[in-house]
Amino acid sequence: MPTLGVARIQRVCSLAFLAMKLQESVGEGVTEVQPGDHVIPCYQAECGECKFCKSGKTNLCGKVRAATGVGVMMNDRKSRFSVNGKPIYHFMGTSTFSQYTVVHDVSVAKIDPKAPLEKVCLLGCGVPTGLGAVWNTAKVESGSIVAVFGLGTVGLAVAEGAKAAGASRIIGIDIDSKKFDRAKDFGVTEFVNPTEHDKPIQQVLVDLTDGGVDYSFECIGNVSVMRAALECCHKGWGTSVIVGVAASGQEISTRPFQLVTGRVWKGTAFGGFKSRSQVPWLVDKYLKKEIKVDEYITHNLTLGEINEAFHLLHGGDCLRCVLSMD
Amino acid sequence: MPTLGVARIQRVCSLAFLAMKLQESVGEGVTEVQPGDHVIPCYQAECGECKFCKSGKTNLCGKVRAATGVGVMMNDRKSRFSVNGKPIYHFMGTSTFSQYTVVHDVSVAKIDPKAPLEKVCLLGCGVPTGLGAVWNTAKVESGSIVAVFGLGTVGLAVAEGAKAAGASRIIGIDIDSKKFDRAKDFGVTEFVNPTEHDKPIQQVLVDLTDGGVDYSFECIGNVSVMRAALECCHKGWGTSVIVGVAASGQEISTRPFQLVTGRVWKGTAFGGFKSRSQVPWLVDKYLKKEIKVDEYITHNLTLGEINEAFHLLHGGDCLRCVLSMD
Repeated sequence: MPTLGVARIQRVCSLAFLAMKLQESVGEGVTEVQPGDHVIPCYQAECGECKFCKSGKTNLCGKVRAATGVGVMMNDRKSRFSVNGKPIYHFMGTSTFSQYTVVHDVSVAKIDPKAPLEKVCLLGCGVPTGLGAVWNTAKVESGSIVAVFGLGTVGLAVAEGAKAAGASRIIGIDIDSKKFDRAKDFGVTEFVNPTEHDKPIQQVLVDLTDGGVDYSFECIGNVSVMRAALECCHKGWGTSVIVGVAASGQEISTRPFQLVTGRVWKGTAFGGFKSRSQVPWLVDKYLKKEIKVDEYITHNLTLGEINEAFHLLHGGDCLRCVLSMD
Repeated sequence: MPTLGVARIQRVCSLAFLAMKLQESVGEGVTEVQPGDHVIPCYQAECGECKFCKSGKTNLCGKVRAATGVGVMMNDRKSRFSVNGKPIYHFMGTSTFSQYTVVHDVSVAKIDPKAPLEKVCLLGCGVPTGLGAVWNTAKVESGSIVAVFGLGTVGLAVAEGAKAAGASRIIGIDIDSKKFDRAKDFGVTEFVNPTEHDKPIQQVLVDLTDGGVDYSFECIGNVSVMRAALECCHKGWGTSVIVGVAASGQEISTRPFQLVTGRVWKGTAFGGFKSRSQVPWLVDKYLKKEIKVDEYITHNLTLGEINEAFHLLHGGDCLRCVLSMD
């Protein structure tokens, strides 16, 4: 397979995914990036050639999924990592908790070299996921009432996207009221803490909004909240988008009447953004100060402190922790 | 409430809903119909004034729902039917198993008097539901692959709508293979009987279609089939529409990953058609031979034979049985 790209990381990045500088080399047949290019590795590839890429309906490129899904490279179905001769599998097609990595060429987005890598590394995952859930998947219109369940980075990016789309009300829902003040800076206009209500949260929201919200977004990964997010939508047109990732084996449920009476249940992955085409566009929007990035970075640590970084994330104060590879 | 219409049935109709001639009278304040008009009573009202009607996003008018949902008229919250002084409640805002009925003016569609009432009575329910599920709710495009679960009247109307929309393949699924021959006349191009396969039906369809169908329609009311209908959709874009009505209390389930990977779960009521605006348009399409109606009528009985008519419907040979009120 001649379309593999070999990229070695020069520096830095986020807790989940990292930006890097293609420094060492590219593999045979790689034409769209060169050593020295600045790139963001993307867990969602974009080949431009497969049934998915050509459909015009989805960003879920299928080109390298069979390999990235099991932690190997496409050409030889082997890993490029080892410890003492024992193979270590790749992770989500990017393997970014590492000073060096190897990725497929369809999994790197070439970006403007003026962009600071230690910031735009965030544009490889959570921030685009939230923005795109609003802009690409739900297509929120001006004047809409929006509910956001979960006020972590993805939920705040949903709020930011909804504000940019002209939403009239952006209701943030979280069981941690400490998150509410910060959420205002991202566009949330009002707050609901479900633990402060006796009624189910979907009923609280229906009562608050004269029948339900126009759009809701589940940004937690909790299947009970996914149901509440659907059921707080307005009869006739309310659309709920699942953004969070649930634990394996868990299922969502509702009465079919919820859908028959006009609610729509959707989901999104990477916010529907086509990675190689659109991540560079998001980087440009950041450089033009049209979207936030710095504001999501609450902590900076080193790769050696990665376990502390996970601990911070679980605590709720941390939005994104950028790891330096130095 | 001055907007009540009183209409008495002159003649005829279907097993579910009936066309009638406004003969006896209209109530105070009724302006859009007159004695002598031909109308089709519609269980889904359309007032043109409520939040739903004005939204431009749904046909689910809310004007008289509070009354029709409990079997009474809006103005005095009472029924117009009685037997020996004991009130009998209205049914679905139309109460059409009766020689005479009383309905709200927002619940009758005035139609071309040239249309034969004993035929176009079908345009008050199942046929528009199937056509509209395809045209209004799913918006099936030319070239699409469509799966229809359940080949009764609603399923056949889905097939008819999909054929008109230019679907390339229309796969009919039913556990009664006797229904397959007739279904061809309505546009079904291939058939699958789940009882003839060991694999789950969603897997059978994914295998048959190189990854899944573009659109699926559940026209039975079975929550397990609703799940199969969603899960046979193509990753990235497949849309499933729940058309059937499940038994009270039953729930649908799936893994959220089905939605996160791009499938969309929707439902429809009366196919998304606005009743008073669009039923007359459907009648006109029938008169121009652009949609089928006669072909769905397999039996004709009298009101006194109504229980036999239900028996026929359960048997599977009957599509629609029109009851004469004579």
